[in-house]
Amino acid sequence: MRHALLASLILAALPSFAAAQAFDSAALADAAKLRTQADSDSGAYGLVESLTTEVGPRMAGSPAFDRAVEWAQGKFKSLGYDRVYLEPVTYPVWRRGHERAEVLGPFPQRLIITALGGSVGTGGKPLDAEVVEFATLDALKAAPDGSLKGKIAYISNRMERFKDGHGYGPAVAARGGGANEASKKGAVAVVIRSIGTDSDRMPHTGMMRYAEGVAKIPAAALSNPDADLLSNMIRRGKPVKIRLDIDAGLDGQKSTYNVIGEIRGRELPDEVVVIGGHLDSWDLGTGAIDDGAGVAITMAAGALIGKLDRAPRRTIRVIAFANEEQGLFGGRAYAQAHAAQVDAHQVGAESDFGAGRIYAFSAGVDPAARATVDEIAKQLQPLGIEYRVDKGGAGPDIGPMAKLGMPWAQLAQDGTDYFDYHHTANDTLDKIEPKAMDQQAAAYAVFAYLSAESAADFGRSPNGEGQE
Amino acid sequence: MRHALLASLILAALPSFAAAQAFDSAALADAAKLRTQADSDSGAYGLVESLTTEVGPRMAGSPAFDRAVEWAQGKFKSLGYDRVYLEPVTYPVWRRGHERAEVLGPFPQRLIITALGGSVGTGGKPLDAEVVEFATLDALKAAPDGSLKGKIAYISNRMERFKDGHGYGPAVAARGGGANEASKKGAVAVVIRSIGTDSDRMPHTGMMRYAEGVAKIPAAALSNPDADLLSNMIRRGKPVKIRLDIDAGLDGQKSTYNVIGEIRGRELPDEVVVIGGHLDSWDLGTGAIDDGAGVAITMAAGALIGKLDRAPRRTIRVIAFANEEQGLFGGRAYAQAHAAQVDAHQVGAESDFGAGRIYAFSAGVDPAARATVDEIAKQLQPLGIEYRVDKGGAGPDIGPMAKLGMPWAQLAQDGTDYFDYHHTANDTLDKIEPKAMDQQAAAYAVFAYLSAESAADFGRSPNGEGQE
Repeated sequence: MRHALLASLILAALPSFAAAQAFDSAALADAAKLRTQADSDSGAYGLVESLTTEVGPRMAGSPAFDRAVEWAQGKFKSLGYDRVYLEPVTYPVWRRGHERAEVLGPFPQRLIITALGGSVGTGGKPLDAEVVEFATLDALKAAPDGSLKGKIAYISNRMERFKDGHGYGPAVAARGGGANEASKKGAVAVVIRSIGTDSDRMPHTGMMRYAEGVAKIPAAALSNPDADLLSNMIRRGKPVKIRLDIDAGLDGQKSTYNVIGEIRGRELPDEVVVIGGHLDSWDLGTGAIDDGAGVAITMAAGALIGKLDRAPRRTIRVIAFANEEQGLFGGRAYAQAHAAQVDAHQVGAESDFGAGRIYAFSAGVDPAARATVDEIAKQLQPLGIEYRVDKGGAGPDIGPMAKLGMPWAQLAQDGTDYFDYHHTANDTLDKIEPKAMDQQAAAYAVFAYLSAESAADFGRSPNGEGQE
Repeated sequence: MRHALLASLILAALPSFAAAQAFDSAALADAAKLRTQADSDSGAYGLVESLTTEVGPRMAGSPAFDRAVEWAQGKFKSLGYDRVYLEPVTYPVWRRGHERAEVLGPFPQRLIITALGGSVGTGGKPLDAEVVEFATLDALKAAPDGSLKGKIAYISNRMERFKDGHGYGPAVAARGGGANEASKKGAVAVVIRSIGTDSDRMPHTGMMRYAEGVAKIPAAALSNPDADLLSNMIRRGKPVKIRLDIDAGLDGQKSTYNVIGEIRGRELPDEVVVIGGHLDSWDLGTGAIDDGAGVAITMAAGALIGKLDRAPRRTIRVIAFANEEQGLFGGRAYAQAHAAQVDAHQVGAESDFGAGRIYAFSAGVDPAARATVDEIAKQLQPLGIEYRVDKGGAGPDIGPMAKLGMPWAQLAQDGTDYFDYHHTANDTLDKIEPKAMDQQAAAYAVFAYLSAESAADFGRSPNGEGQE
């Protein structure tokens, strides 16, 4: 990280002929204006306050998500976007009913759980069984076949905290695949330690998936303190029996929408710079950091660009994606609908990692456009953003387009606290610092504006979806 | 605070003739031994781990509280206490059933609430009404009579954070008296912002009381993020209607017990030094900091004194009080049963302010015993404990005895974070630092031992229940 910082400092200090060619003085002046305006008052915090207060939780498939679509259309319009439209996104609806758990013995007390997204319920009645603990998903995989017959598997791995959130990947495997592995061994249910870095008595939901041909068993997450409690009980050596009572399951299909707002480009209106976040949230919190913040940041950034005296050369397209949480349905629908227009996409970037300040910028573009990206990085530096050459990757919902070759950029947010709140009831407005929203909106405005204004075509991403 | 610290440093530096007379060298050696042993491994953390794991939540009147009584008896015995016995405590039983709330309009979404202890329910069906916000209890009192007819009063005052917790008193008035004041104005229910310093989506329960002759209306607390949300909705100017659905209420009387363990004094066995905490907890968390910690600290301290080669002159009496939370029932029952033996009580001290390190010591004793207390303070200094002359007050459960004249001491804990977790689901073991438990057990052991060993009689407290 130190070397990358040094490199970008040298870049900033030396006169760059390539950079001088990348943007004219009017463009650089507008970028500076956007940066200053947004960093002072971008309006982004007001947008996430509005979405969380007036809509609140908006799980894909719920009536609240329909209200969120109306909200996004209304906001794009009132913010002066030139064009506001919907694109359909269809997906299966998952429904959460009640969810209760308790230890029956030897130490009876309540446990706080939440069903994982996609899980089936316990069949309309409580499910009582002994719990067998595994330290990791791999330990569960190594259990003898049939050894969990009639039992509940409990995977207790704990997620580690990092600024870039890289503790998530290793830990979340237990959430996605725990039910399948447990079911293969004969288990009647799986519970996992929440995939989160907090120590609050609030479980983290998130998606799990059933593999073909494996019996579907209920899957739920314990809060971290409840996981500690269960492990402490099991460590005492007597069989621990728990009761799960979960009502959840799939409930048909639904068509909703990606909501799109555009600031029309002045010279190449059919070429687009895509920025956005996802409009859906989980149902437990109000979806403030995941991903009301991302929608608000990019919506505010686009609006500021729209208020410039001179629009950029290309169109700014802000997308509030539908149903990211349950399988990138919005991002995949967008890529499917726009697969033939990959070359009309200058670049895409998504904000979906909370509301912490942006500390690093990287991009995957055609090497011929590198000098332009270097200059964009330079224009982001006053916001405290480091340039990371050849790092990062595309965000989740722009991933499907990036796979088709769309250039991508990453504006990396400080995610140190992100997994304290992610997918819990604690994902609420108070977790967001208003000034951090301005810094992020400033970064998106500068990045999107300069990318849209650039004389250079960003071509195609050299590496498909980019490195991670 | 600086002056007090300076005074205690001077005290420590100067040879004190009074102190030299207070304890012989064998007593001071035993005090030092207790301090070192306890601060290294007191066993207190293991006790609170055991109580929270093997019993968990233990609300007064619940079957779990009966298990807690068995647990405490068992622990006193296995820790080698000389005498373990029960004293009866009778109280009305309050029962919590389901509790749900939601905003019906204009922005429908769920609200997270919990019923306040003692509250009635909504009568077996949901209660729908418009909410009227008041910034404080006083603002509610100032509302015109009848102005809340058919409405729900919402008191939104926020508790402030301080090391000594003095933000609690001003804020908690809304919890205790909000229902009465709202009812007098015609309201059908009251909701309050949780009395807590956190910003977690977990409401804080706690006791409320109905006044004679005032219609009983349901009373509940919103989590701090939910209170923000409701205030933000109301600020938009349209009537906000919510639904409360609460099942709660009184359910007969129950007799349970204060659980008492004694280390018998070698010369004056009928004179006692009382230390303790309360065995009951609220039902939402596992009662780790409130007050498993206090029970564990004082139980461990007594056990260490019991392991000395020479018992102190007086008896150490450790009390695990019943039903502190719903009205100091255990403390009041103790005072009633022992009112005739006030003079047999050398001093009493209670641990009921979480599990943060002890930073200050003060005592209310007969002025003739002051030199002895000064010496005890000196023996606490190596634990980082400041001496505060003429400050502090008796803890809740020893308050009724202190009112009758029993001398008291306060070992003040750092409560900076206490009200983040107090009375919430988040009151769990992970909030406790094991080494802080050792420091506290060391302080209680030194204090209790020297008080019991003292040649001086602490007489009667000069000021009844002491200053606050």
